[in-house]
Amino acid sequence: MSDSDDKQQRKDAKHKAAMQKQKAKVDARIEEASLERGVAVLVTGNGKGKSSSAFGMVLRALGYGMKVGVVQFIKGKQLSGEEIFLRDRLPEVDFHQMGTGFTWNTQDRSGDIAAARETWEQARRMLADPAYDLVVLDELTYMIGYDYLPEQEILDAIANRPREQSVVVTGRGGGAALQELVDTVSEVKDVKHAFRAGIKARRGVDF
Amino acid sequence: MSDSDDKQQRKDAKHKAAMQKQKAKVDARIEEASLERGVAVLVTGNGKGKSSSAFGMVLRALGYGMKVGVVQFIKGKQLSGEEIFLRDRLPEVDFHQMGTGFTWNTQDRSGDIAAARETWEQARRMLADPAYDLVVLDELTYMIGYDYLPEQEILDAIANRPREQSVVVTGRGGGAALQELVDTVSEVKDVKHAFRAGIKARRGVDF
Repeated sequence: MSDSDDKQQRKDAKHKAAMQKQKAKVDARIEEASLERGVAVLVTGNGKGKSSSAFGMVLRALGYGMKVGVVQFIKGKQLSGEEIFLRDRLPEVDFHQMGTGFTWNTQDRSGDIAAARETWEQARRMLADPAYDLVVLDELTYMIGYDYLPEQEILDAIANRPREQSVVVTGRGGGAALQELVDTVSEVKDVKHAFRAGIKARRGVDF
Repeated sequence: MSDSDDKQQRKDAKHKAAMQKQKAKVDARIEEASLERGVAVLVTGNGKGKSSSAFGMVLRALGYGMKVGVVQFIKGKQLSGEEIFLRDRLPEVDFHQMGTGFTWNTQDRSGDIAAARETWEQARRMLADPAYDLVVLDELTYMIGYDYLPEQEILDAIANRPREQSVVVTGRGGGAALQELVDTVSEVKDVKHAFRAGIKARRGVDF
């Protein structure tokens, strides 16, 4: 056996031992998790990828033939790529949009609040309906942050949803009470963004 | 006018002024970004939502009728929801999987390396083909971290891809050189996870 073969075999053996240890750890953790029910997930933070993460979960649920509802708060008058796809290719998804555009474009607080209320009624209906396996509330956090909707009403609707229903909320912030209520919180940090290097937002990636 | 109306009107006016300022800021930033080309995005970190974020971008690109390639490294022998959806509903997506399962399950370094190499050849082919608008390299970072593929070969293939092509890489870690090379880095932080409260991974959300 050459030195190099010997080195390779030791590396392989070391890898195997490390992976056996890792497998034992993962198996133990899977064993411990015993509660089975729908989960509430918050994807927050200032980085790119929050809404797309929620839409990835929509695909996941649809893969299993689940019933999915999507309510988008704030998002623009102009349809983005995932919205076009949802409308044209996924008619089975119950899809509602506030569609007033960003608050800094409307500059109309009273109008925004009325639109938020109307959109929220769609979300509340889904959160009360056990037929939905997954409900996505895209950009809902801003409704709390801007005080467009009563925080407690949102918390109650999420807390009292059907036991088997999962819900994904996206958007910056959201507040401590929402973080406390949900099961999983992922914070997407903006480590680096193409924008700051002067690169334009890219169709099919950024919108 | 009642006191309450007056208060409301002042709140609305204040909101309008703040939003005008915000709009000017956003407009200026959009003005500054002038470079138009495909972007390279890394979605990393220890939190939930990295792969689903990439799959959300797949939807986005498909909404515009773009050509998409997806290569999955590591991911299991068992198809997850988004993989079933991709296979059954999106035959136009060029989809390849390493399909050997997690390293701690295979515990076979040499076999993993051979599978990684074979899978990487599919990725390299896409990264050299201007027909692809978006290429997703799911869990590619582990191939670098475990030293299954030469880092420089990966960096070169991403750096030399067609100018209009966008690429999304997901997975924990990835190394400083990859972070340096890509345009956008989002780090998904695990702030809270249902798993730690004893809740089982949920179909349609976690897999």
